[in-house]
Amino acid sequence: MAENNLLYLSQADVVAAGISMAEIIDALEVAFRAKGEGRTEMPPKPGVHPGGGNNFIHAMPAYIPDLKSAGVKWVSGFPENYKQGLPYISGLLIYNDIATGLPLAVMDCVWITAKRTGAASAVAARRLARPESSVMGMLGCGVQGRSHAEAFQVLFPLQKIMAYDKDPAAAQRYAEEVGKNLGIEIVPVKTPREAVSGCDIVVTAGPILKVPHATIQAGWLDEEPSPRWWTTIPSGAGTPWHRPPSSAPTTCLS
Amino acid sequence: MAENNLLYLSQADVVAAGISMAEIIDALEVAFRAKGEGRTEMPPKPGVHPGGGNNFIHAMPAYIPDLKSAGVKWVSGFPENYKQGLPYISGLLIYNDIATGLPLAVMDCVWITAKRTGAASAVAARRLARPESSVMGMLGCGVQGRSHAEAFQVLFPLQKIMAYDKDPAAAQRYAEEVGKNLGIEIVPVKTPREAVSGCDIVVTAGPILKVPHATIQAGWLDEEPSPRWWTTIPSGAGTPWHRPPSSAPTTCLS
Repeated sequence: MAENNLLYLSQADVVAAGISMAEIIDALEVAFRAKGEGRTEMPPKPGVHPGGGNNFIHAMPAYIPDLKSAGVKWVSGFPENYKQGLPYISGLLIYNDIATGLPLAVMDCVWITAKRTGAASAVAARRLARPESSVMGMLGCGVQGRSHAEAFQVLFPLQKIMAYDKDPAAAQRYAEEVGKNLGIEIVPVKTPREAVSGCDIVVTAGPILKVPHATIQAGWLDEEPSPRWWTTIPSGAGTPWHRPPSSAPTTCLS
Repeated sequence: MAENNLLYLSQADVVAAGISMAEIIDALEVAFRAKGEGRTEMPPKPGVHPGGGNNFIHAMPAYIPDLKSAGVKWVSGFPENYKQGLPYISGLLIYNDIATGLPLAVMDCVWITAKRTGAASAVAARRLARPESSVMGMLGCGVQGRSHAEAFQVLFPLQKIMAYDKDPAAAQRYAEEVGKNLGIEIVPVKTPREAVSGCDIVVTAGPILKVPHATIQAGWLDEEPSPRWWTTIPSGAGTPWHRPPSSAPTTCLS
């Protein structure tokens, strides 16, 4: 890398690239397929935990030969940041030249992480949920609640989202903002159960905490024909808990 | 992190900070002590290997509470880069705010890596080599050969370095440049053995290769009083192979 010519893309620069959620979903499917077929290098992510508690900073290196891409995301999650008006998630993504190893660009990873996580759940739901799913339950009305709603609307004929947050004001803001942006009905609800029962798809979009503050209880999901089963996707965030195409709802834990 | 205000320090900026080798050695000793006493988080480094062979890009995350420091080095080593006039080692270091996880700065890591690696061997030699050591053998006359000579001169009364490189022209350039910079005698030699025999300290400073091109053979080092022993430091580069203070030489494999 020559002196002083590193390309830095701020969050505004990344957003200005104008990549659509549909493109992100399709790109992720290419990457996940390569991973599933053993054509990637993606070692387990190590992390450090300044301040302890639920704080983390994770290194997420990967090499995808199919896409001629290598790099690392160094991303932090500090759940108490909101008290200072700072984002829960922050970090950078370094993109490298696979022929020489030299760093080519550094990007703010906040927008990328938000979109990618919603898109990852959508990739799973595309394969696993009923295509006509129209009612979605959302547990957590923050960045991921927004990203998931946007991603799922790309793939499903969403008409209504039942929105729960431990902060009722957050659910109210979500209802107004997302309802306007997506042009669908958003119903803020007061209990997690109301965001689960009667839904075709359920998404949990809260922070990763050692002691969860809201958990889906057995019996909350609608009844379904047997057999009942579920599985998980081997990715950190956006792990879906789902069932086969049937009249039962699909649940995505993000 | 607000928009567009990320601090980027190029290699020139890092050099201009004017940190001396003596300061680097002392800082490393603080960090190594914290590590040895269990007061750091330093998970094993994962890596990816674009192009295979000896290429690597490693993520090296760490958190040192004693120094209120957290960050990651994302560093690549592509041994064939020299054919294009590019450095073997390149990469970036991200430095984070331990209170919020936000990235504070991105630094070119080439100078930092070069100096740190020589300094790490010097920290080991400070404890393990005879203080009066004056003749050093150097296997490998590149960046690390230079960094190690500089670091060891801080701690030992060096008078002479026996310099070997598989490329004789590199050993000749090293002799002229380092001899002038450090004001000591540098003797370019034609075989690895000549850079080992008769030395107080021996340093290997070549790239990490799956098939080493020069190996120290049993019997090359000077005789010593018994008992003979050696150990290693649990760090990637700069692993010293040493003996206790005695008349025997200290060998540092970097």
